[in-house]
Amino acid sequence: MAKAPGEIEALIALMSRLPGLGPRSARRAVLAMLKKRGLVMEPLAQALTRVAQSARDCQVCGNISDHDICPICADEARATGIVCVVEDVSDLWAMERAGGFKGRYHVLGGTLSALESVGPETLRIPALEERIGAEGISEVILALNATVEGQTTAHYIAETLAPTGVSVSALARGLPMGGELDYLDDGTIAAALAARRQL
Amino acid sequence: MAKAPGEIEALIALMSRLPGLGPRSARRAVLAMLKKRGLVMEPLAQALTRVAQSARDCQVCGNISDHDICPICADEARATGIVCVVEDVSDLWAMERAGGFKGRYHVLGGTLSALESVGPETLRIPALEERIGAEGISEVILALNATVEGQTTAHYIAETLAPTGVSVSALARGLPMGGELDYLDDGTIAAALAARRQL
Ligand SMILES: [Zn+2]
Ligand SMILES: [Zn+2]
Repeated sequence: MAKAPGEIEALIALMSRLPGLGPRSARRAVLAMLKKRGLVMEPLAQALTRVAQSARDCQVCGNISDHDICPICADEARATGIVCVVEDVSDLWAMERAGGFKGRYHVLGGTLSALESVGPETLRIPALEERIGAEGISEVILALNATVEGQTTAHYIAETLAPTGVSVSALARGLPMGGELDYLDDGTIAAALAARRQL
Repeated sequence: MAKAPGEIEALIALMSRLPGLGPRSARRAVLAMLKKRGLVMEPLAQALTRVAQSARDCQVCGNISDHDICPICADEARATGIVCVVEDVSDLWAMERAGGFKGRYHVLGGTLSALESVGPETLRIPALEERIGAEGISEVILALNATVEGQTTAHYIAETLAPTGVSVSALARGLPMGGELDYLDDGTIAAALAARRQL
């Protein structure tokens, strides 16, 4: 990776930190951009600058968009009484790609973890409880990953919400063990949503 | 890929056009950046903008750097009488990573191709001939790819330079370091056999 001159080398180093891009593929991507500076590199630099300036976390659900309230939360056509809880923004996007869900979302921002001392507050679980009262939510769908951490977190949320009388379900065990939403095909996610079971 | 909001979606589309990044890995890379906007996304946007503005083709050798004359051509410690001809800037960088060559370079910008009507002028071959006279070059090393196109181009250059009396050589053909016969293609083995050396 050395020997690419100065600023270009710095750019390759930054690119190589992105997931899925090692030093070799980062170098190749930068070279491809360098050969199409006006056509690829400048538009990409501008798009990155725009998004870096405009992107923000939705104040309601935790989705990332270029508005304080994301397009999903702002969409009056979507059901207000039903909320789908996901671990991460990538999972929310995966649910939307799968289609079939027309309610709102709530992004936890991770899973409970004693080891990494991630508690309910870190995960926006209190914010979820608040929304249930404030928005008159009657149904919560837990769309957490089929991992030990995801299922532990699902059980904790189900127990926490039990006193509220709200209906709590989870995606059906159509998900393969250890599977993460972001890596699954749309059909699998849609089928698991349709067959969700009462907890 | 749909459903990522507006500007973010546009960014993912641009990223997914880079070599080695499909729509899926582009989405993952953008999401990773979105979660570290200040730490990753903004520095990357700035680095891209800087490089897009400063990068230029070396007026002597065709290398890409942030100077009109690249650091290699500007380095007075490097031999002036010997020039290594490569197809592409990526090949120049690969030669530099390999080390061992202390002369100058000449980037052709491709290979001769009747099909794609790439002639000697497109490839900066006249510029190479000019340099040989102007810089007093006495040795040319052809470091072209071991492909049909690369070798056709090498033969053309060797013939073109014959009248100048300059010494023209090409990279040796043979087994790569650590190469196992069982995993190498027949062409490589045949070339290594033909170029066998006395022990
Ligand atoms: Zn939202
Ligand atoms: Zn140069």
